[in-house]
Amino acid sequence: MLPEPVSCPDWLIAQEAEKRMKSIFQLAEELDIKKEELIPYGSYIAKIDYRKLYSRIKNNPNGKYIIVTAITPTPFGEGKSTTTIGLTQGLGKRGKKVSCAIRQPSAGPLMNIKGSAAGGGLSQCIPRTEFSLGFTGDINAVMNAHNLAMVALTSRMLHEANYSDEILKKRGLRRLDIDPKRVQMGWVIDFCVQALRKIVIGLGGKKDGITMESRFDIATSSELMAILSLVKDLKELKKRISSIVVAYSKTGNPITTEDLEVSGAMSALMLPAFNPNLIQTIEGQPVFVHAAPFANIAIGQSSIIADMVGLKLNEYHVTECGFGADIGFEKFWNIKCRTSGLKPDVAVLVATLRALKYHGADKDSPKIIPGNPLPKEYIEKNMQWLERGMKNLFHHIKIIKKSGLSIVVCINKFQSDTHEELDFVRKFCEEMGIPVAISEHWQKGGQGALELADFVIDACKNNSNFNFLYENSLPHISRIELIAREIYGADSVEFSPLALEKLQSINSKKEFSDFAICIAKTHLSLSDNPLLRGVPEGWQLFIRDILVFYGAKLIVPVAGEISLMPGTASTPNFRTIDVDLQTGKVTGI
Amino acid sequence: MLPEPVSCPDWLIAQEAEKRMKSIFQLAEELDIKKEELIPYGSYIAKIDYRKLYSRIKNNPNGKYIIVTAITPTPFGEGKSTTTIGLTQGLGKRGKKVSCAIRQPSAGPLMNIKGSAAGGGLSQCIPRTEFSLGFTGDINAVMNAHNLAMVALTSRMLHEANYSDEILKKRGLRRLDIDPKRVQMGWVIDFCVQALRKIVIGLGGKKDGITMESRFDIATSSELMAILSLVKDLKELKKRISSIVVAYSKTGNPITTEDLEVSGAMSALMLPAFNPNLIQTIEGQPVFVHAAPFANIAIGQSSIIADMVGLKLNEYHVTECGFGADIGFEKFWNIKCRTSGLKPDVAVLVATLRALKYHGADKDSPKIIPGNPLPKEYIEKNMQWLERGMKNLFHHIKIIKKSGLSIVVCINKFQSDTHEELDFVRKFCEEMGIPVAISEHWQKGGQGALELADFVIDACKNNSNFNFLYENSLPHISRIELIAREIYGADSVEFSPLALEKLQSINSKKEFSDFAICIAKTHLSLSDNPLLRGVPEGWQLFIRDILVFYGAKLIVPVAGEISLMPGTASTPNFRTIDVDLQTGKVTGI
Repeated sequence: MLPEPVSCPDWLIAQEAEKRMKSIFQLAEELDIKKEELIPYGSYIAKIDYRKLYSRIKNNPNGKYIIVTAITPTPFGEGKSTTTIGLTQGLGKRGKKVSCAIRQPSAGPLMNIKGSAAGGGLSQCIPRTEFSLGFTGDINAVMNAHNLAMVALTSRMLHEANYSDEILKKRGLRRLDIDPKRVQMGWVIDFCVQALRKIVIGLGGKKDGITMESRFDIATSSELMAILSLVKDLKELKKRISSIVVAYSKTGNPITTEDLEVSGAMSALMLPAFNPNLIQTIEGQPVFVHAAPFANIAIGQSSIIADMVGLKLNEYHVTECGFGADIGFEKFWNIKCRTSGLKPDVAVLVATLRALKYHGADKDSPKIIPGNPLPKEYIEKNMQWLERGMKNLFHHIKIIKKSGLSIVVCINKFQSDTHEELDFVRKFCEEMGIPVAISEHWQKGGQGALELADFVIDACKNNSNFNFLYENSLPHISRIELIAREIYGADSVEFSPLALEKLQSINSKKEFSDFAICIAKTHLSLSDNPLLRGVPEGWQLFIRDILVFYGAKLIVPVAGEISLMPGTASTPNFRTIDVDLQTGKVTGI
Repeated sequence: MLPEPVSCPDWLIAQEAEKRMKSIFQLAEELDIKKEELIPYGSYIAKIDYRKLYSRIKNNPNGKYIIVTAITPTPFGEGKSTTTIGLTQGLGKRGKKVSCAIRQPSAGPLMNIKGSAAGGGLSQCIPRTEFSLGFTGDINAVMNAHNLAMVALTSRMLHEANYSDEILKKRGLRRLDIDPKRVQMGWVIDFCVQALRKIVIGLGGKKDGITMESRFDIATSSELMAILSLVKDLKELKKRISSIVVAYSKTGNPITTEDLEVSGAMSALMLPAFNPNLIQTIEGQPVFVHAAPFANIAIGQSSIIADMVGLKLNEYHVTECGFGADIGFEKFWNIKCRTSGLKPDVAVLVATLRALKYHGADKDSPKIIPGNPLPKEYIEKNMQWLERGMKNLFHHIKIIKKSGLSIVVCINKFQSDTHEELDFVRKFCEEMGIPVAISEHWQKGGQGALELADFVIDACKNNSNFNFLYENSLPHISRIELIAREIYGADSVEFSPLALEKLQSINSKKEFSDFAICIAKTHLSLSDNPLLRGVPEGWQLFIRDILVFYGAKLIVPVAGEISLMPGTASTPNFRTIDVDLQTGKVTGI
């Protein structure tokens, strides 16, 4: 028996469960993955040789495809990863062949506030620490490949400044004439580092680089991570990497990684990351891990490749998208599914009573400060706040309905939740004809998720009427306005002059027509202001800049004050992490 | 049969050899490593569970301990890794149970000029590409753990600036009052990036960090890498990490990673890197890989842990230290061996005729420019240049003799080398009573290294009179002067006022007495000026700064113009690296 979650931290439960986990070879065998298709990393983690495996299974029928999303979360999160794993365990308990796909945690939030994304309580994936801390190195591969492009760019700029055309020619280089004021890319690092948001590089002497402004973003927001989420084969990976625009020349020509002759080396660095990872839930179901979080500032989806494999090998495959349905699900729906051609069957919408109460709370109610305990007001019963907060849930239901998918609402139950509150939510949803599961997977594992699993199995029997919010024939500016109104609930969109100028240039060029819109916006509100709770009304979405990811084929409108580099808080998680000298293991993750 | 090295690039030879390499399980079994002591990374690479393995074998007798060093290298290198592997293969051919320890290549030189450090021709380790490109992630672990200290530092400085004592106290923080002008650490990245040598961070608004000067060094020069090279157990790893001084307070108190409450998390990130890696030579001998290069700007040694394991499991264990004997061997001798307590038996001194000719060349002879082909003058026969260049070899012999070790000179033979030249070198050494092997391991593998292997086996029969250059009772300033005179051949040492001030403060404190001297100096000359060839005379070593690594217990005098961050050249290697879409493999490394 595993310890009771109420009296035991997640990492200790994981350590107990790890004492009897399956070897990776057994896990793979049960999943019908052959030994030669497996690249073990120790005894409990493996990468899948995707090319080998997929070419063998590509004609299998697809299983049912379930997407897990959430209402607008508090800074504590709604437990989407926990629910993804809990549902997988619940389906397993019902005797179904099932897998899930989650994203590799970034060390930024891990070391800062949010902790691991391995799930919690009795719904976790293991080995937890190895998964949470570096894992098989995919984020490092993205970081290094990304930064290599910047090495190529900055050294090229320096050599072009210091050498004549003749010398450059001798060394096989043509002058690219890069404009230091129009460098698009920054550097990346997999931590939350406010001090690297805005920097000046290339100080010093003639050999120390060109002096210019630069920046570090968090590694998971790299265009390379978006590419990793979206590609289906190696050829596409290489092609997309070579199309990344790093800067512009003084005459306005885009400078790609291919122009810098660095795209091959970047692809080489990304090669191991191309293969998805395999671990298990604490109840022994397979968990694919591929790509990374941050649906607010990036695409933030588990990869298409992981889903393709999961669907071919299982009756049910559960996948995850980041934050609320306004950002994570919208991107899953209109970007990831459009790119993959896969059709999901059911969406699970996760909510917690604490978040519903937060969204319906009085104006002077306490703030939720990451790192501090949750104020008791959101734990205690409060029917008025809950009732008002249902508007947020209702809005997210409306968002998902536009996609044509069947919905199952999942209340991720806490011990403090009262019957009266839970009954209220249940009734609210049932009146709309939406099944709602009060799920105790955190406390009880798969056994606590049986109601959720049953509702999902039922919902999978419906015919999916899945369709996109817009067609790619719609101009980009109209797509942004559509998402703002239909998804976020804004009255209208205001573009900064810079953003508008860029959008007009994009609209005029045919090459961009199949580029997807991937808005960067806070996840803490439906609006672009993280302080506005519930369903904000009478507001305008402000787009301050437009990024163009030529390789990922994304147009990224940047909304409000959102930054691609989070900061580390004054009460960071890294304070609690340590190594136990007796066991040689990491504690506190 | 493997392809002929003269007509085939290294990576293609490696690909051929990889078709019939042993599985990592077979390799481990032959080495007497048990399955539960092995952490496989795929089928041909593993980490060793050092704690498990060493506790079982610690009472085995040690094998013979051979160190490979070189004369002052040209920018092309003398082939030390190639010779280390070639000698291991040669000893294998003689039926000896043998392993070697090499260092994980840094992506900096790999992507820049030097290429892989996997050896070359028919003396290589495999799988070559995986070894060269990221491998099992040790350098990434060092980079991330190092940068996490900087995240903790910069965010703490910001929070202390923005919050009152009362708020800090509420969050469990005391005011450290860090002086932005006395931050000791920089950030690290595993590339050569001149543009990040000198930067300003923390620009922007009140939430974007404290504005201050900062820098990026290459990851392999991190204090954490030195610690990884020098520790013998986990307890020491953790203790040394927690002693790293990141900055000083405004009142002059050192601020450690422990003060920043980040040392536990840094240890957690370093934990996988603590275990050494295992691969094989193309002839099937075990190769341990641990720690990283750069004996010029760092300690640059294969780890003590790797050597401890290799010595316990084999009759012969060959290890490697960076660059010429003046820097790599001196650090092996007086730092690594003093720390490990291990006594080496024989030193192999590697030289190439091209380097000897380079050191004896006329003043107006062509420069060697990395990335360009070697000028033909150094390939063609030139007895006069060779004769004059022997002074450099003689100087390195004198250095090693001071340690009391037996010496075997190894000429790493090229096809263009003439009999007359080779005979001259042989005679020169034999007149001093030093065995010299003309070794063809590059062209012929272990078979070509039999003479070298036999001389080494013979030399191992001598009683080793190994002793240190100085005792730790000698003041640091005198140790620096001793190394300058006795090892580098300088007349004297000039200290900058800054360096002198720091040294006087160090000399006055007892806590520093067992800190080792680890001089950062160019590897391209015995002097601190990379342009001076041969054996420079009548010169003064200039020490411009003193770094203190409290965790690694190193005092690092910085000589001449050396920078801890190399630059990327205009003809970088990354241009030739790519991914083959047919095979899914990396090409060109």
